[in-house]
Amino acid sequence: MSAVSNLVVDDLLGAAFARVQAEVDAAFDAFLAVPQDSRARLVEAMRHAAIGGGKRVRPLLLTATADLFGVSRTSAINAACAIEAIHCYSLIHDDLPCMDDDDLRHGKPTVHRAFDEATAVLAGDSLHALAFDILTQPDTSTDPFVRAELVECLARASGYDGMAGGQMMDMMAEEADYDLHQVTRLQQLKTGALLAASVEMGAILGRLPVEGRGPLRAYARDIGLAFQIADDLLDVEGDAGLAGKALRKDEGKGKATFVTLMGADKARAQARMLVDQAASHLAGFGEEARLLQSLARFIVERDR
Amino acid sequence: MSAVSNLVVDDLLGAAFARVQAEVDAAFDAFLAVPQDSRARLVEAMRHAAIGGGKRVRPLLLTATADLFGVSRTSAINAACAIEAIHCYSLIHDDLPCMDDDDLRHGKPTVHRAFDEATAVLAGDSLHALAFDILTQPDTSTDPFVRAELVECLARASGYDGMAGGQMMDMMAEEADYDLHQVTRLQQLKTGALLAASVEMGAILGRLPVEGRGPLRAYARDIGLAFQIADDLLDVEGDAGLAGKALRKDEGKGKATFVTLMGADKARAQARMLVDQAASHLAGFGEEARLLQSLARFIVERDR
Repeated sequence: MSAVSNLVVDDLLGAAFARVQAEVDAAFDAFLAVPQDSRARLVEAMRHAAIGGGKRVRPLLLTATADLFGVSRTSAINAACAIEAIHCYSLIHDDLPCMDDDDLRHGKPTVHRAFDEATAVLAGDSLHALAFDILTQPDTSTDPFVRAELVECLARASGYDGMAGGQMMDMMAEEADYDLHQVTRLQQLKTGALLAASVEMGAILGRLPVEGRGPLRAYARDIGLAFQIADDLLDVEGDAGLAGKALRKDEGKGKATFVTLMGADKARAQARMLVDQAASHLAGFGEEARLLQSLARFIVERDR
Repeated sequence: MSAVSNLVVDDLLGAAFARVQAEVDAAFDAFLAVPQDSRARLVEAMRHAAIGGGKRVRPLLLTATADLFGVSRTSAINAACAIEAIHCYSLIHDDLPCMDDDDLRHGKPTVHRAFDEATAVLAGDSLHALAFDILTQPDTSTDPFVRAELVECLARASGYDGMAGGQMMDMMAEEADYDLHQVTRLQQLKTGALLAASVEMGAILGRLPVEGRGPLRAYARDIGLAFQIADDLLDVEGDAGLAGKALRKDEGKGKATFVTLMGADKARAQARMLVDQAASHLAGFGEEARLLQSLARFIVERDR
């Protein structure tokens, strides 16, 4: 539970976070055996980024969704590691000197600080490839159709039509002077695409037909936006020590965020409204959806 | 035929190169429609790297292998674009200031020179994701088992157990003082893995069972090594104007290559021996394999 605030975590959510954190760490440990040659440094850098840090929000979203459909734990954890590998690679590259130039991530030195820039670029690239390698292993699903659909979902969510495209929009934000519509689009790509893919991949593993995914997609869309509003609020109001990374980065850059465009109070109210709405989309799942609903609340109430 | 030497190209090979170059360019043009928002810069950078440059050796290897089994052209070109997207992303990242710091690639400014470093990192990442996106499209194969097998093959060949791992070994080369065995291993990963995947993906599309892939794998292993020996020879003896990139980069760094370890004459003889051996592995395919055999010869006799 080290990386998760105790304040807003009920017992169910707390236990679920602790479990998925341990399982994802153990799985990465197994995927990333250090080779006995000069690639050791590369795999050590991948381990530095992938093991023992992060809240594991995406893995928990994925496994909690998969649980709705009785998916095996091995399948769900493999897919969770794939999406977390994408998330970790994106953090390594975002932290590079030519991007955000950050020194700290999850309370540890960033990969380019702990190793070097070239190793950081390669470690990110290697985690990127590992994600798709994991998804095609028979352990992830015995059904090749499911494996191919998982890859399609994750590749789309990661590329220029997803996370990387959102990151590009973010880099252009200072000069582009976005309005609320454009900031929303930016965040849907930058953060929302991968959060939505986490839920979608749980549904794919659960063999839920596309026609039945509406409520889960609506839930994912709402928490994606709420997540980013909460991030913008934390950037302004949060505690860098708790966050384990630099804050107040948007300040003074004249960069439009939900907080600069709406004001902190209205942004907070909007995030809470989105979370209530997200929870209501899952009403049809009854008690089974309680974990996903708690996770939605955690996403806006977290302190890091 | 702009990027291919006329000296060593017979009519069959010349026509095949010209065809695949045009088809890969057209396919990338279709995959990379420029969006009407601030992601335009990202997609322009991807297009800069992916369209109108490069010999397209990997696409030709893939399509020529697929032709042995009567694979549809659309399937083969899609898979060829996927492997070329991986190759292009690796060049963008290898050219970065923190890696090789190169200004020229295929006679054009490198992506970080034509755009900027952050855009180059993201363009590489986005081409990486695009590769797997393409492989899961039904156009690539209507059979999800084939799509999943293609992804598995390409992901494995790209990551720390393939290309990226080889790049890491290469970065450690100056201090590691490799012997011939280690240089061979390095090159099998750095260059060989993706060349071998090109052939393997052609066989996967052709639904050749794993038990039948021995001769093609032996061919791919031999040309992979021959390709790198030829690259080392070109680095020492080549014409930078023809190559469209900086040469003599290994000189003076004390970095072990096939040429420094064996001497140029012995290296050249070894490359030719490997090409003869590669061609002989394909004897069982008869006349059908002539293009792959010509391509093997081109790989060691090329002047860029």
